Amino acid sequence: MTNKEVLTHYVKTMTTALKNAGVKHVIISPGSRSTPLAYAFASDDAFSITMQVDERSAGFYALGVAKATLQPVVLLCTSGTAASNYYPAITEAHYARLPLIVLTSDRPHELREVGAPQAIDQIHMYGHHVKWSVDLPLAEQSSKMTQFIERHVQRGTSLALTAPMGPVHYNVPFREPLLIEMEQEEPEQTFIQRLAPQASFDQAMREEVRQLLSQADSGIIVAGELPITFDTAAFWTFAGELGWPVLCDPLSNLRTNVPAQYEALCIDQYDALLKSPTFCQNNIPHTVLRIGAQPVSKPLALFLKQYRPEQVIVVDEAAQYRDFLGVATHHIQAQATVLFDLHVTLETTEYALRWKEANSLFTTLMQEKIEHIEDEGAFAYTLFESLQDGVDLISSSSMPIRDVDTFFNRTEKDIQLFANRGTNGIDGVISTALGIQQARKRPTYLLIGDLAFLHDVNGLIATRFSKTNLTIIIMNNDGGGIFSYLPQAKHEAAYFEQLFGTPTGLTFEHIAAMYEAQYDAVYSIDAFKAVLKQEKTAQLRIIEVFTDREKNVAAHRQLWEQMIERLE
Amino acid sequence: MTNKEVLTHYVKTMTTALKNAGVKHVIISPGSRSTPLAYAFASDDAFSITMQVDERSAGFYALGVAKATLQPVVLLCTSGTAASNYYPAITEAHYARLPLIVLTSDRPHELREVGAPQAIDQIHMYGHHVKWSVDLPLAEQSSKMTQFIERHVQRGTSLALTAPMGPVHYNVPFREPLLIEMEQEEPEQTFIQRLAPQASFDQAMREEVRQLLSQADSGIIVAGELPITFDTAAFWTFAGELGWPVLCDPLSNLRTNVPAQYEALCIDQYDALLKSPTFCQNNIPHTVLRIGAQPVSKPLALFLKQYRPEQVIVVDEAAQYRDFLGVATHHIQAQATVLFDLHVTLETTEYALRWKEANSLFTTLMQEKIEHIEDEGAFAYTLFESLQDGVDLISSSSMPIRDVDTFFNRTEKDIQLFANRGTNGIDGVISTALGIQQARKRPTYLLIGDLAFLHDVNGLIATRFSKTNLTIIIMNNDGGGIFSYLPQAKHEAAYFEQLFGTPTGLTFEHIAAMYEAQYDAVYSIDAFKAVLKQEKTAQLRIIEVFTDREKNVAAHRQLWEQMIERLE
Repeated sequence: MTNKEVLTHYVKTMTTALKNAGVKHVIISPGSRSTPLAYAFASDDAFSITMQVDERSAGFYALGVAKATLQPVVLLCTSGTAASNYYPAITEAHYARLPLIVLTSDRPHELREVGAPQAIDQIHMYGHHVKWSVDLPLAEQSSKMTQFIERHVQRGTSLALTAPMGPVHYNVPFREPLLIEMEQEEPEQTFIQRLAPQASFDQAMREEVRQLLSQADSGIIVAGELPITFDTAAFWTFAGELGWPVLCDPLSNLRTNVPAQYEALCIDQYDALLKSPTFCQNNIPHTVLRIGAQPVSKPLALFLKQYRPEQVIVVDEAAQYRDFLGVATHHIQAQATVLFDLHVTLETTEYALRWKEANSLFTTLMQEKIEHIEDEGAFAYTLFESLQDGVDLISSSSMPIRDVDTFFNRTEKDIQLFANRGTNGIDGVISTALGIQQARKRPTYLLIGDLAFLHDVNGLIATRFSKTNLTIIIMNNDGGGIFSYLPQAKHEAAYFEQLFGTPTGLTFEHIAAMYEAQYDAVYSIDAFKAVLKQEKTAQLRIIEVFTDREKNVAAHRQLWEQMIERLE
Repeated sequence: MTNKEVLTHYVKTMTTALKNAGVKHVIISPGSRSTPLAYAFASDDAFSITMQVDERSAGFYALGVAKATLQPVVLLCTSGTAASNYYPAITEAHYARLPLIVLTSDRPHELREVGAPQAIDQIHMYGHHVKWSVDLPLAEQSSKMTQFIERHVQRGTSLALTAPMGPVHYNVPFREPLLIEMEQEEPEQTFIQRLAPQASFDQAMREEVRQLLSQADSGIIVAGELPITFDTAAFWTFAGELGWPVLCDPLSNLRTNVPAQYEALCIDQYDALLKSPTFCQNNIPHTVLRIGAQPVSKPLALFLKQYRPEQVIVVDEAAQYRDFLGVATHHIQAQATVLFDLHVTLETTEYALRWKEANSLFTTLMQEKIEHIEDEGAFAYTLFESLQDGVDLISSSSMPIRDVDTFFNRTEKDIQLFANRGTNGIDGVISTALGIQQARKRPTYLLIGDLAFLHDVNGLIATRFSKTNLTIIIMNNDGGGIFSYLPQAKHEAAYFEQLFGTPTGLTFEHIAAMYEAQYDAVYSIDAFKAVLKQEKTAQLRIIEVFTDREKNVAAHRQLWEQMIERLE
């Protein structure tokens, strides 16, 4: 074989193995060193290619696709700091448990650590934030090599998909020349199939769990973020048999698509209810069954921490289960689905009824009160009410996810909610939304603050290369709104605005013009309602809602004081 | 002491030690967990604080300040992906040898790896790209702790400043509550002073180097990027005694401020001259003395690689000296300044005269030819000619640094040139320029392509919090212009634009409006000249030059063909 044929065989071995392992989406950032792999992906119709000039945004775009599909998603970049730019998304993917396959192109060994341009030490460069980091050899003509590359790629994707899912890293060195034979035949692969059965309980364990649940005279289920593949129908049957109130974090996606017969079990007002000390004291559960990630709600966290229920059963497939409150008494290391055929049928309790009634009261109260408020919460509520059946809603971290938690009420509509909560960063949010939209193709809404929008404004570059259908609602309170809820907001005012408020004074109609987006600026709820009713006329729509940080805090606090007063 | 006093004592011990170690500039990104350190820095007038919402840009801003001062510069961020965003700048700082002091705030130990929000594994998170990574303990009331923190901070900054300089990382955990006593007295420090003498030669070594240089019948000095503190006057005296032509990379800053008597020694046309095979063959030096980083010029690299001069002496203070061509025969592990009192005085050779004459010919030729060209090179040339005495010029990697290399001729003007060449990334360039401007306070020009501008557009956020004086010249050729010079530009046209050209179709008048910059769009050299003569009326000025990728390549190639014809 010629050198060119050897190189072609090498990269096609990789891309074919990735294809066989289920990779469909490849996010590429332009560069020279990655040429062989870029051509190998681009010349194979099995892959959907997305270009993104900014590698940081590319990382989060891939993460969005992975979140929406739970399939391995490939990132490809050139050598040097390009690879460093993936780090934020890799960190998030590690904690959000998403199967990214990161391919960093590298200089050949003789150009490492000798001052060659665009050459950095890429070996293990993502530290503990990837599950595996492989430094591949240069292309050579050897059947050993071919088989090893194929199998190493297969192992890596398997590892990325093994619970808890997470990113893996291949560092791939290339020596010039970098061109390949586009038409060269695809290599035959020898590894045929991976069969990975899910964990299941044996009889003894089933009995033990059944007993744990049965001995509770009062119980709640706490459902945090759940994976897109979660079987909600089976879950509701299970919850219905238990008869326990389900405190549904918005990212559990149990507030949407709720079957009518289980509607009352779906508790969506707990964030507000648990602000009442009286309610807390009167409603300490004996047992908490927690599934999914940890919920957003701070009152819920404080409630569990302060009253430490007798049994807190955390169902988490990772040995390093999530429980930062340190309240777990039992850890079931499995997916929640293993519980669903236990059929623990309990009597409905007084305790459960109290939750349902309180939830119902607060739903009504909120509807009444919200009409008279003009804060960010009211804007968020207005948005949620306006959403049609069959759309996706992505929320930024910081204030938006808290507004979703508080104001997104249970609904029969089919609305899927997403957010990056592995590390709760405000980076990469636009890219994540675009990635999710690309994977799911549904009309998509993104609720985001001005700082988070600004942070990933380059996420929008992807719209120059791939079509989207996205409406971005920016809550522009000119700076770090969430800090106004912290203790420092009341002290050292001289430094607060400098260090935390960080008012940039920026508005985003210019960005909208740059990316040819439909744009509206909104200052009142009425105007917002009117704008939301208008037709979407561009692939990208931006609605900028101007609010006031101080008024938001005041309105927020007043609303809850009034509601809690009524409850008590 | 109260807990608050203990915490205050802890962070003030750190900030005082940093102050005593010479830190003046602190770049902070807003966040909650970093509150104690943010307040400690902000309440001490010794520190100049810059806020930057985007941590990636913050990293490059700090890097710019470090490049301009060679003093330790502090970065401070909250926990989580904020810290991951520093990675690109840290990578560049490692290879560019710049003393960044990276402070990442962390959650306390009980909140690590238990699913707490914004908590990631920050220990050693920057891998091999920092010289030292310290995980500090929580604040406690103990004199042991105070002394240890002070001395660890002192050691770290010393290490950052030790050749080769580089970044160090402190991970600092904080438990809530995070407020400090702003007025609390500064802790007394016990470590008083660091004395770090520079390396110097002993008699035997001096003799050896003197002999190496004396035995050459033909020699050149190749000067790559040199640190801002480099003693150019002493260098020119040394070079004058040797009488060797000095091939001055623009980042050596030896093309500017050239003393009249050494002007002829300053060779600035070698990139063009060494494109001629005849010139190369006739001018192989016996000895090359290389100082500073490796030059930008590809013809120079090929020349050295092809003809492998008998002696190639690389002067580099790092054991891992920079020589990706693998042509070095000697490595002097020291700063170049140790050579300057060797006083090796040699006779002027025919060889040296040939270089001087060829250089002079090409200077004249270029001036003639460039008048009739309208490509990116001609725009760059026009810009350089227009620059006044006493300004700084920052160049992006990719095409701009090559245009600087080719078209920035030697001058008596005091113009300081900068670029990020540690890893040659196109990321963080705007931020680096803003950091340099802040440290030096001179009128500053940035030459940058459209993709690099877009990549760090968030660098501009810093202009909302700190004044600047920056003129950005964007060469907008709508995509990755440099790739048009690569082999793939001629093949597989179907994929070339998708994978490499990546035309975003974006223009930047909107960004200019968003950041209240003075803005001009320019389509011709005449218009460019006129615009450059107009007064700067805003702190930020953006001149967008629209060029055509294909025409640039053609004009570029034609210019050199004509010039080389004349030479041969």
